[in-house]
Amino acid sequence: MAERDAPPDPRGELDPAIAGRLKRGADGLVCAVVTEHGTGTVLMVAWMDDAALHRTLTTREATYFSRSRHQQWVKGATSGHTQYVREVRLDCDGDTVLLVVEQTGPACHTGAHSCFDEDVLLPPPQDP
Amino acid sequence: MAERDAPPDPRGELDPAIAGRLKRGADGLVCAVVTEHGTGTVLMVAWMDDAALHRTLTTREATYFSRSRHQQWVKGATSGHTQYVREVRLDCDGDTVLLVVEQTGPACHTGAHSCFDEDVLLPPPQDP
Repeated sequence: MAERDAPPDPRGELDPAIAGRLKRGADGLVCAVVTEHGTGTVLMVAWMDDAALHRTLTTREATYFSRSRHQQWVKGATSGHTQYVREVRLDCDGDTVLLVVEQTGPACHTGAHSCFDEDVLLPPPQDP
Repeated sequence: MAERDAPPDPRGELDPAIAGRLKRGADGLVCAVVTEHGTGTVLMVAWMDDAALHRTLTTREATYFSRSRHQQWVKGATSGHTQYVREVRLDCDGDTVLLVVEQTGPACHTGAHSCFDEDVLLPPPQDP
């Protein structure tokens, strides 16, 4: 009984029922879109391998995989700008997860609230 | 003067000032996160090459690049479930664009409103 009630080990393996639904890219990663609880603002996009997704699901601390540094990173571990994960959803293709988070501090490393705040390629049309 | 006032050709080249800010993946694509105007709902995630982004910016018809079919597709061209693009933003890394669209019909090919509607990996915590 104790074994059944033990919480999942964050360093363990991703639930095979979930792992089997993922469609990873050639690099073994899925895309993670991160939105803010309450406002729906899209804060950032990052990447996850199976271990990062497993850690996210078991700890509710947003955890990603850095494509440039080739290692796992826990959001806010250095900056303190952590993300408490309220919800995770998988898309119809199995190649993207959607996170709903409570963001502490700015989500962007530039200090902006969202990574999409600063560069507008196409402004809204001027309604008549 | 006529030349300066002519609208950009949707089949032309992406503005070099934008092209220079993109950080494309090994496949030459950037990620596109699509949200719904008014609600902020994340509808889907797709991919764009330079030509698809250029067509999107010049026509306000959401246009993507299919990684499986290796060709450009205009959202809704077959289904009628088009996306009128109100805004496009680029993230701090230059590898993801955020679209705000007016969605006609369901965004997902399954018939769901959003591609993230149906598969919950982690439900919201039960607040005390």
